[in-house]
Amino acid sequence: MYKTRLFAPGPTPVPEETLLELARPMFHHRTGEYRKMLGQLTADMQYLLQTKQPVFTITGSGSAAMEAAVANVVAKGEKMIAVRAGKFGERWSELGKTFGAKVVDVDVAWGTAITPKEVEALLKQHPDTVALYTQHCETSTATVFDIEGIAKVVGKTSTLLVVDGITGVGALPFTMDSWGVDITVVGSQKALMLPAGLAFIACSEKAWKKIDATAPGAYYNNLKAYKKSLAAWDNPWTPANAMVRAALKSTGMIRSETIEKVWSETRRRAEALRAAAKALGLTLYSESPSDSVTAINVPAGVDGEALPKVMANEFGLRAAGGQSQLKGKIVRFSHMGYTDAFDLLAAVAALEMALGKLGYKTDYGAGVAAAQKVLARG
Amino acid sequence: MYKTRLFAPGPTPVPEETLLELARPMFHHRTGEYRKMLGQLTADMQYLLQTKQPVFTITGSGSAAMEAAVANVVAKGEKMIAVRAGKFGERWSELGKTFGAKVVDVDVAWGTAITPKEVEALLKQHPDTVALYTQHCETSTATVFDIEGIAKVVGKTSTLLVVDGITGVGALPFTMDSWGVDITVVGSQKALMLPAGLAFIACSEKAWKKIDATAPGAYYNNLKAYKKSLAAWDNPWTPANAMVRAALKSTGMIRSETIEKVWSETRRRAEALRAAAKALGLTLYSESPSDSVTAINVPAGVDGEALPKVMANEFGLRAAGGQSQLKGKIVRFSHMGYTDAFDLLAAVAALEMALGKLGYKTDYGAGVAAAQKVLARG
Repeated sequence: MYKTRLFAPGPTPVPEETLLELARPMFHHRTGEYRKMLGQLTADMQYLLQTKQPVFTITGSGSAAMEAAVANVVAKGEKMIAVRAGKFGERWSELGKTFGAKVVDVDVAWGTAITPKEVEALLKQHPDTVALYTQHCETSTATVFDIEGIAKVVGKTSTLLVVDGITGVGALPFTMDSWGVDITVVGSQKALMLPAGLAFIACSEKAWKKIDATAPGAYYNNLKAYKKSLAAWDNPWTPANAMVRAALKSTGMIRSETIEKVWSETRRRAEALRAAAKALGLTLYSESPSDSVTAINVPAGVDGEALPKVMANEFGLRAAGGQSQLKGKIVRFSHMGYTDAFDLLAAVAALEMALGKLGYKTDYGAGVAAAQKVLARG
Repeated sequence: MYKTRLFAPGPTPVPEETLLELARPMFHHRTGEYRKMLGQLTADMQYLLQTKQPVFTITGSGSAAMEAAVANVVAKGEKMIAVRAGKFGERWSELGKTFGAKVVDVDVAWGTAITPKEVEALLKQHPDTVALYTQHCETSTATVFDIEGIAKVVGKTSTLLVVDGITGVGALPFTMDSWGVDITVVGSQKALMLPAGLAFIACSEKAWKKIDATAPGAYYNNLKAYKKSLAAWDNPWTPANAMVRAALKSTGMIRSETIEKVWSETRRRAEALRAAAKALGLTLYSESPSDSVTAINVPAGVDGEALPKVMANEFGLRAAGGQSQLKGKIVRFSHMGYTDAFDLLAAVAALEMALGKLGYKTDYGAGVAAAQKVLARG
């Protein structure tokens, strides 16, 4: 009998305290009690995003917030840039096309990051770009982009910077206001230690100017409706109020740990896994590896599709394989949310054992020891 | 100390067994385990809607499914009819306008129902109507429409019949396929005995022909994406998988009770409340009262805004007041979902006691006795 250990980049484990909140009796959402909860969650999300702007809570997946970031911002025929460096970059592009935007697709080699310099050149070439859409971390390739640097470049132009922070916020250092990010979207099932079902979005004043001047292409994800409702601590549609109540347990835990501590502990676990991979003679897929999720190349001679399956089926440890062109080529481990150093050691040990079963010459314990060294650092 | 009793038309009480499912450890959604759950929930929802068509599970509020029913069906410039007989009819109209449809607003006096004959005349006047949008029960006025009769009339034309079954499905007799309803939308937080956060939608073959020929105006609520994913028991976006697992407890309870029994028990509770109201000298707001929710006129001399507040604050019983022009004029009681005969007696007793506190000459127990007589019937 093995315990289930979630190491895929979402859904991630949810703290027991939060799960128990979900089991509490149902309650009504048009009450002072709920308004207070929504107010607190908004404040907690402002802290997580490091923004003074209102953060809207959408009942939906992260993709609902991504839709809001396009459909309320770019009008039909207007230009947007979609940075496509993996599966989730493609989603920005598809969204733009659905809403009739003139989409400039910028294809970045999978596993590499777009640089601030490249963004600068792009905006010079396309000065009429309403918004540039990118990921903070492209989950499919486990690659982090230099959003702080990119924001500096975009901030000098009239273009808006829209960041998919779904595999970033709550895991990677991110300060929306001081960096100058215009729109950030987040999902609940990653670094926020919550089940899937809520999405979040915040917009800068620069972004609101454009939103206010644009006829929204969406109804459910209409940001003006969300803004109007939030002024009365309300949602435009019946909210998943039990999820909002439960969310406060998880965001409260992050607050008491402090976001800076959560960021540094996440980084330490990522460093530990990278050290373990090196000790096992393995290499990383990404040239710009994220601290929120790590992609390890499947070594020659090992069945890459079998690797995550052996870990899941024999050891209960659920990592993620590669998607699309990376199928069978990488294995990915999340560092987000409710995991600690010893969970990570279990992941390293399971990786060693699965590799051994699949014929890789594994020096058992070498990865674990390398990870421990990093985790034991003061 | 009073127990909290939810009698507003959503969110309704959730069975303890279902709440406990929500407290179980998180799990991954790209697994055989989840695919089996989604398959079962789809089958259960097909049973609840009495349809052979696939039922799609959307992570979102009922309004997300309403958007899907418009944005995938009516192209820009095409004609749709929105039956506006209350607050939720207005939502259909707003949705049509957002997506550029030529909306024919049909205003029906609040508290009355549109008849099949009136629909027949409308479609003769507007034969180029792509779809007619209506409620099964207009929640804001507690009024039920004769969907079976309307479907007969619409079925003879090329127009599609789209029904908001959010305050209907699982409470009122409804057989999508045999009646000939083309699109049905449902939310989780009413008769389905679930928290808010999931929405459902099913479409007839006639509707699919139009959907397949229409460029979707929405991305998140793109029905073609849902159809493609469901073929592999998957969702297009990260689903609220813990909610799907929990939903099976509630839908399973309905299945073992049988949907026909749930319909008849809901009707009996509605009849009991109507008998109680009569015994207390009260009148109903609606000329076509629904069995899923009852609206009682606040009697002369009683502070209508105070009435639900007294029930909630002093007795823990949360009914709903009126919305918009009905503010302070009615009080509404849900009959949906996880409530039984004795919960209803508590509601009647609380209504009597609150009316007494607010100066109405209440014959204590008269309402309760009248309700009991109905509830005791074999």
